[in-house]
Formats: sequence, C-alpha cells, structure tokens
Amino acid sequence: MAKDKPTKLRARMPRGFADRGPAELAPTRAMLETIRKVYELYGFEALETPFIEYTDALGKFLPDQDRPNEGVFSFQDDDEQWLSLRYDLTAPLARHVAENFDRLPKPFRSYRAGWVFRNEKPGPGRFRQFMQFDADTVGAPTVAADAEICMMMADTLEALGIARGDYVIKVNNRKVLDGVLEAIGLGGDENAGRRLTVLRAIDKFDKVGIAGVRDLLGEGRWENPEAKSGDFTKGAGLDENQSLKVLAFVSLQAGSVELQNVTSSVQAGLAVEGEVLTFRSDAGRESYFIETSRGVLDGLMGHFGDNLTSREGIEELAEIARLTESAGYDRDRIRIDPSVVRGLEYYTGPVFEAELTFEIPDEKGRPMRFGSVGGGGRYDGLVGRFRGEAVPATGFSIGVSRLASALSRLQTEATPEFGPVVVVVMDRDQTAHYMGLVAKLRQAGIRAEMYLGNPKNLGNQFKYADRRNSPCVVIQGSDERAAGQVQIKDLIEGARAAAAITDNAEWRESRPAQFACTEGELVEKVRELLDHHGVPHGAKLA
Amino acid sequence: MAKDKPTKLRARMPRGFADRGPAELAPTRAMLETIRKVYELYGFEALETPFIEYTDALGKFLPDQDRPNEGVFSFQDDDEQWLSLRYDLTAPLARHVAENFDRLPKPFRSYRAGWVFRNEKPGPGRFRQFMQFDADTVGAPTVAADAEICMMMADTLEALGIARGDYVIKVNNRKVLDGVLEAIGLGGDENAGRRLTVLRAIDKFDKVGIAGVRDLLGEGRWENPEAKSGDFTKGAGLDENQSLKVLAFVSLQAGSVELQNVTSSVQAGLAVEGEVLTFRSDAGRESYFIETSRGVLDGLMGHFGDNLTSREGIEELAEIARLTESAGYDRDRIRIDPSVVRGLEYYTGPVFEAELTFEIPDEKGRPMRFGSVGGGGRYDGLVGRFRGEAVPATGFSIGVSRLASALSRLQTEATPEFGPVVVVVMDRDQTAHYMGLVAKLRQAGIRAEMYLGNPKNLGNQFKYADRRNSPCVVIQGSDERAAGQVQIKDLIEGARAAAAITDNAEWRESRPAQFACTEGELVEKVRELLDHHGVPHGAKLA
Repeated sequence: MAKDKPTKLRARMPRGFADRGPAELAPTRAMLETIRKVYELYGFEALETPFIEYTDALGKFLPDQDRPNEGVFSFQDDDEQWLSLRYDLTAPLARHVAENFDRLPKPFRSYRAGWVFRNEKPGPGRFRQFMQFDADTVGAPTVAADAEICMMMADTLEALGIARGDYVIKVNNRKVLDGVLEAIGLGGDENAGRRLTVLRAIDKFDKVGIAGVRDLLGEGRWENPEAKSGDFTKGAGLDENQSLKVLAFVSLQAGSVELQNVTSSVQAGLAVEGEVLTFRSDAGRESYFIETSRGVLDGLMGHFGDNLTSREGIEELAEIARLTESAGYDRDRIRIDPSVVRGLEYYTGPVFEAELTFEIPDEKGRPMRFGSVGGGGRYDGLVGRFRGEAVPATGFSIGVSRLASALSRLQTEATPEFGPVVVVVMDRDQTAHYMGLVAKLRQAGIRAEMYLGNPKNLGNQFKYADRRNSPCVVIQGSDERAAGQVQIKDLIEGARAAAAITDNAEWRESRPAQFACTEGELVEKVRELLDHHGVPHGAKLA
Repeated sequence: MAKDKPTKLRARMPRGFADRGPAELAPTRAMLETIRKVYELYGFEALETPFIEYTDALGKFLPDQDRPNEGVFSFQDDDEQWLSLRYDLTAPLARHVAENFDRLPKPFRSYRAGWVFRNEKPGPGRFRQFMQFDADTVGAPTVAADAEICMMMADTLEALGIARGDYVIKVNNRKVLDGVLEAIGLGGDENAGRRLTVLRAIDKFDKVGIAGVRDLLGEGRWENPEAKSGDFTKGAGLDENQSLKVLAFVSLQAGSVELQNVTSSVQAGLAVEGEVLTFRSDAGRESYFIETSRGVLDGLMGHFGDNLTSREGIEELAEIARLTESAGYDRDRIRIDPSVVRGLEYYTGPVFEAELTFEIPDEKGRPMRFGSVGGGGRYDGLVGRFRGEAVPATGFSIGVSRLASALSRLQTEATPEFGPVVVVVMDRDQTAHYMGLVAKLRQAGIRAEMYLGNPKNLGNQFKYADRRNSPCVVIQGSDERAAGQVQIKDLIEGARAAAAITDNAEWRESRPAQFACTEGELVEKVRELLDHHGVPHGAKLA
C-alpha cells in the first residue's frame, strides 16, 4: 500500500441518491420512448420546465412534511428570494401555463419526463431523486379529459408489453370524499387540516391495511401496532361513528375486505345495498368483513348520494365509467375504486392510480401485488393560484423507476448487452496503425476501440475485453503485420467452448475460436462473426 | 374582469432559467440521439450520476467564483453536511469511479447527457441550468486517449451535419503553459493563485482579444476599456516582460494577431523562428503583429522547449498531431492552438475546444464566428483526490444548447411540425361516439384528439385546430351521424387556398378543402390526406 494521505476525501453519495449504469439506462430509455410515442399519438406535445422554481410558485402540497425543509430542497437566491428544486412536474406546469396563458392553445395538452426531488427520509427503494413522466390537459372542464387520460395510461402500459389483466387504472373522486367528510361534520375551512389528515390516512390503505387506516382515522398508529413501538403517527381524532363512515366509503369496492386487529367491538351502522357490515370474532382474532354484491357506483349513490358534493362526484365517476366502457375499456382495465385518494393536497376532482396486479415475492417471499406505478387527478385550483380564477386541469404522472423495475421483472430472459470489439495493443509503436484498424470497423458501424490502458500485460487486455463483454478481439503482432494479417479471437465461441464439459473437438474445429484474415477482410470477417452470434451492429456512420 | 384577489401569486421563473417547447425539444432530442450513437460506436457506455452530491466531493474548480455561493447552488442536509447541485458532469464521474474503482473495467469509457447548474449572474444566452453531453476515458495514461476523443468529437460534429471546414477541434496542453509560467518565475505552490488568474485571462482570449488578455495579465481590465467604466477585473500583476512571454505563447498560431489599444511601447524580446515580434504605430493606433510561418509545434519547441515541463507537453501535442493526422484528420479538423486553455482548474495535460468556424451576424450585424460548442481535457488528479494516487483520465463535454442553436442556424428550411387531427364536438351528448372516432385514428397510428374545451363555440374549436397546426379536422353533426358519415376539412389545403391571391377555382375543385366520407372510410381518407401533404404518421400502435 502507498502511504496514506490524511487529506484524502471519501468518495460517497448522499443518502437517497443513486448512480445508474447501462443495464438500467438502456431499457429505461426504450421505455421513455414508447411512452412518448403514445402521448404524442394522443395529441400531447413536449414541454420542459426548469429544475429550480421560486418556492412560493411551487406551493406546499406534499404529504408528510415533517422534516425541517418540509419535503423540498430549498435555498436562497442572491436577492434573498427562496428557490426550490421541483418536487413534482405538476406545480411547475401550472406556473408555466399561468405565465404564458394567452399565447397557449387551450385546452393545452403537454407531456414531460423529468427528475424531481423530495427532501425526505430515504429508505429501501425510496429515493430523494426520481423521474416522473407526466401528461396534462389544462383548460378542459369536463371529465372527458379525465377519462381520456385514464385510457391513455391503459394504452401506455399495454404498449410497454404489460398484458391486459396485469394492470388496472383505479379511479375515484375527491368530491365524493369531500361530501362524506361534510356529512360527518368535517366541512368548512376550519377543518381543512383534519380533512388532510383523513385523506393521508386513506392514502396509506395499501401499506397499512384497513385496520391501519382505522387507527390513523382515530387516535393514531404505532409503526409496529402489536408491540406499540416505533414511530407514532398522530391520527385524525375521529370518533368511532365518523371513522366507520369513512371506512365504509373506502371499503366500498367489489370483493371483501378484512379488518384485522380491531380491538373494540363496533356494531356497523351501514348497510351496503341490503348487506350489513358485520363484526365477528374468528378463532380469537377479531376481524371485519364488508361485502358488496352490487355495483360500486350504486352503493356510493345509495349511501353518500344525499350530500350534494358527493352526488356531483359520483355523477362524474359514472360519466367516466360510461365513456371508458363505451370505448371498450372494461372494468378489468379502468375501475372505480373509492380507496384511491392520492397523497397530494391539490387534487379537486377525479383521482387515478395505475396499479400492476401481477404478483411478485415480497421481502419474506410471500406473493404480493407489484402495486402502484403512477397516478394523478384533476387539479382545478393549481393554475388559479396565479390567475385568481379556476382553470380546469387534469393530469397523470408515471413513476419511471417503479415502472422500469416492473418491466424488468416481466422480462423472462435477459438479453446480454455486448461491448465493443477490442483491438489489443501488441506493439506500442503501432498505436496509429491499431487506431486505423479501429477506425475501419467504426466506419462500418461496428462498435470498436483500441485498448487504451497500459499495454504491457496482454492478459490484462483480454481481461478487459471479457469485462466489457466484447464479442471478439483483434490481434496483430509483428509477424501478422509483416504478412498484412490480423488474428480475430471469438470470445463468445471461446466462452462456450470453455463452458462445454465434454471436449467437442469436431465442433470446435468447424468454427475455431481464433482465426486469421487479411487486414482488407477485417470488416467483413468481424461482421460475419457478429451476425453469426446475433450481436447487433449499426448502419454505417454517415 | 373578476374581482381582484390580493393574495394572487405572480407566475414567474427565477432569472437564468427557461421553459422549452416542442420546437426546441424535438431537434435537441434527435441531436442527443445522434451524439449517443457516435459515442456508443467508439465503445463508450451509458452512466448517469445524481444531480446532488456532497459539496466536498465536487470540489471547487469553477472560474469566476465571486458570488457568495461560489458559483454552485448549495444547501445543508438534515445531518448538516453540505450538498451541492452538480456544476459539471466530470467531478461526479470522478466520485463515481473512485467509489466503484475495483469493479469497473479499466480503462473505463462512459458517456452521459445531463443538466448542470451554475449559481452565476445570468445574462443573454447565459443560463444557470444547461445541458452537457460528456464522454470520458478513465485509466488511460497515454495521449492516444486524448487523440481518440478529439477524433470522436470531429466525427460527432460531422454526424450532426456540420460540414468539414465548418468546425475545428483545437488542442493545447496545460503542461506547456505550466512550463512557460515556471520560466517567468510563477512556479511553485505559492503561485497557484496567480497561475490560475493567468489561465483565466488567456481563457478570455475569444471574448476580449489579445489586448484584453494583456490587460488581464497586467494590472487589470475595465469592462469598457476605452471609457474605463463598468466592472473592473483585477489582473495577474505580471510585469511587461512576463506578459510578453505569455502573449507570445498564446499568439503562437498560424496566421497573424493584431494587438489593438496597446498603450505602452514595448520592444518584443521574442523571435519566432527568425521572425521578430515587432511593434508599430499604424495611423495613430498602436498595434502588434506576430507572424509565424513555420509549424506551431516547431515554434513552441524553439521558444519554450528548454523548460522540461513545457517540453513534455509539446511532445504530447506532437504525438496527438501524429495520431490524428495519420488517421486522416488533417489540421483543418484537429489543430494545435496555444490560445486554448479552458477555464476549469482541474485540467493537467491536453485541453481541447470544439469551435464552429462558420460565421453568423453578431448583435450589430457584423459577421462573427459561431465559436465554441464544447471542450475538455485531461484531468489526472480528479479521481486521485479520493484515492491518494493519480488516476489518468480525459474527457470531452459538449454544450448541448449551444450546439443545438448552431444546428438550427445551419438548417436552411424549417420543417413545420404538424399537430394532431382534431375531431370537433358538434353535440355534447355524442362525446363517447367522438372519442370512438379518435380511438380509430390513434389505433391506425394517426395523432388525433377530440376537442376537450367548451364546445359551445365552433369557431373556437377551429381556432384551436389552427393553433395546433392540425392537418385536418373531422366534423360530424346530427345529419352526418344519421347518414353514418363524417366531414373532413383539410386545413393545409384550406390555408393554401386562402393564401392564393387569384381565385383558382379549377384547382380547388380538383381537391376540395372539405369532403365527406363514411365512418368506415375515416382512417383511410385521413391517411391519404396526410400522405398527400407529406405529414408523417406512425406505425400502428401494438
């Protein structure tokens, strides 16, 4: 070891950030291109906004803002105004539309893929920098725009190779929930904070289950409820009857929902189209079953339709269902689901969530649904913050990393990425000549390079070619050069031959792992080798 | 006007940032894809690093750090460690390589396009967020790697359609300059600051001319030298003989350089291969001519070769010239030019600059060279900051916006971007049916949408289609619907007909701007219309 320098820096990344190599970038690039094409087909056009905005222009709409910097990376400009890194792509779009309102076509359809930043506690699979791919329609007042965006999301997932049945776009409406909250006495500006707490409790449904939501609606929830340990999240403070109404709303979906670990006995006060929410004790474990047999929309209208706000929301959901079903998107693809609320505060109407329904093993090996890969909704107030009048808008945001991760799990066979052809350096003085051989290959559209490390150790050069997964190396010593020849060593064939347990002399003889050709034949022979192994090589460089 | 709300926010962006629409994004995307393909062909592989790094990991290598935040946007993490937005893509790459040193193939060739941030005073065409597209080879000790990267840049510019002769890759070597500075007594750690000032003075050559560099090497320079007004930049404080040596070095290029506004008379002490730097007064205006007739390398060796550091640098330049010339890149494409130094502090050897040499009008209408679109160089110390040993590395960075702007100026004819086919809404109740027509078009790979604004005013719907530059609109009122028909209005033809001064009845009759067809023929007829006008439409959606 060389002597230590005390001033040596440690090479490290801040928590919640990651480097990305070709194995991740190449499929993500292909995925983004497919999404872009679907969005373009739907008439959306490209728009990008900067990473940094005035903090007040972005507003504060993030859930769980319990860190000092309130979820957003912020800093002061030299004129002391506060700037922030964008935490989503919707708030900057609202700023853009407001700033350019008169010159934009309306409705204004636009899309953008971009990195966003959250100053949150990072965790496994939870990053402080991640990419979203959004599409938004601003200036479209009716839910036809919402229905269209849901259909576009379904088309997008299918264009990416996700089979019908392996995904569902779930749709709800904030207005229905607003009505429910009004009905239990949580209307009015003075209850805005509590409404938000309720909303975020429901948003955790996928993570904490119905019992967890129940705790969060009541006094609160321990991170580990059974041991009453870990972080404690303060609840919304609803009483049992209030909670029950909210839980009934959330649970009003096809199928049945089990409430585990309910500690107090409650007589359910709600009938779902004739079926009563029953409470029962099952093998010592208390649990709840809510069953619905009629359409979710009928159930919603029957139970919550008395409230005018809820009724308006239910009617909008009915229209979305009508438009999507008549376009052939049945409820296996786009479905009304009252448990969807979305964590962001700015939604005002329909909200959506794209969920992948196929199962993957969880950390304990049990099968679990892959889950959400994106969502969105209507945000009629966001542009209006700048304009003093409501501007109807709706949008959908894909979580790019989540979706890429899902796609990689769907791929049964990983296609190996081949590296460049490597021309090894046998003789330092011949650098210019070796570079000439490389140039010939490149001009023919073949990825190639000369070894640029210290050429002294030939073994290192071959090791390098192996690490790059090169299909072949080109070798020219002084004898070959004198004869105007090169040696081509086929690394794919070589690896196969090495892996073969029985010595298959005949097969190897018919296609030797190393062969000679003239310099003039180099391009042709390498091309044959690549074609033989199915290694792609591009068109000629212009 | 609606009543004003006093709390209304103003929609605005911080200075030095910009929104980007489809007219800028589409050609940039195509450009990035071409660059990527050339880099891949050269054997480089994709790597992306995060936007945020530890401040100390990035280091402080930026020129002109006279703002409080020293050129970089920085903020503290919740553990009080300082974080910064990356100001280039090289420092993060060095961190990545150091962090993953053992598992990376070496040499490690990688590329990345990404946004970087400078907390600088913004100005016209000078942004605080801009994109770079870098390629780097880490672990390659010889200048063959530098030569290769210069050739790759030449290939990249040509692949983008920039003609040979319209660009040049200029190459210099920091070592030569280091030797010159040693020779005038500016060697040693104690002079590091002054060396940096000299370097940055030379880097301003393109902007301030040789006289400006002279001032910056001496006492300093006024923003408006004649009026002695504006900002004053303090100089390096060299005496006249020291300055002259540096100026001679900078000027040692083919051609002649005029020194304007030299206020004191100096007898040049340098001979350039027999030609003396002469001072003369010309029509009352003092000016300097330095002429070279022999090769720049000979001149450098003749004048600066006594210093060992300079000699090493000159020999490296000679090797780069030999390698690139023998690969067919003559000095119109890759050229030794001692005026190139690059502003960043971390370069240790060869430095490069890609300059577009075609002329565009400046703000006063005078022809001027387009100028630099990228640069780079060898930075053998940057990875070593983390490892305690030098790790040889070299790279090149393209300024994406500058290059895109150059390409747009080279395009003689702007191809119009067509918007989607618009299905207008004649009857609100038929939304589902109109959406069905749109779906048919999309399924055939034709960009299409239903008008999603308030449909009441049909004129607004046509105005919308005009603003989107739609090729045609599809119309179906109750009469057409009853007959199973639609009307197709050809907006391109319509615009032509409207623009025609003479009424060409016959021509219009042969291809009317509006025609009817059955719903079943819709896709076929729209496709014919698009083909007729040369509007691209994609393959079918899978």
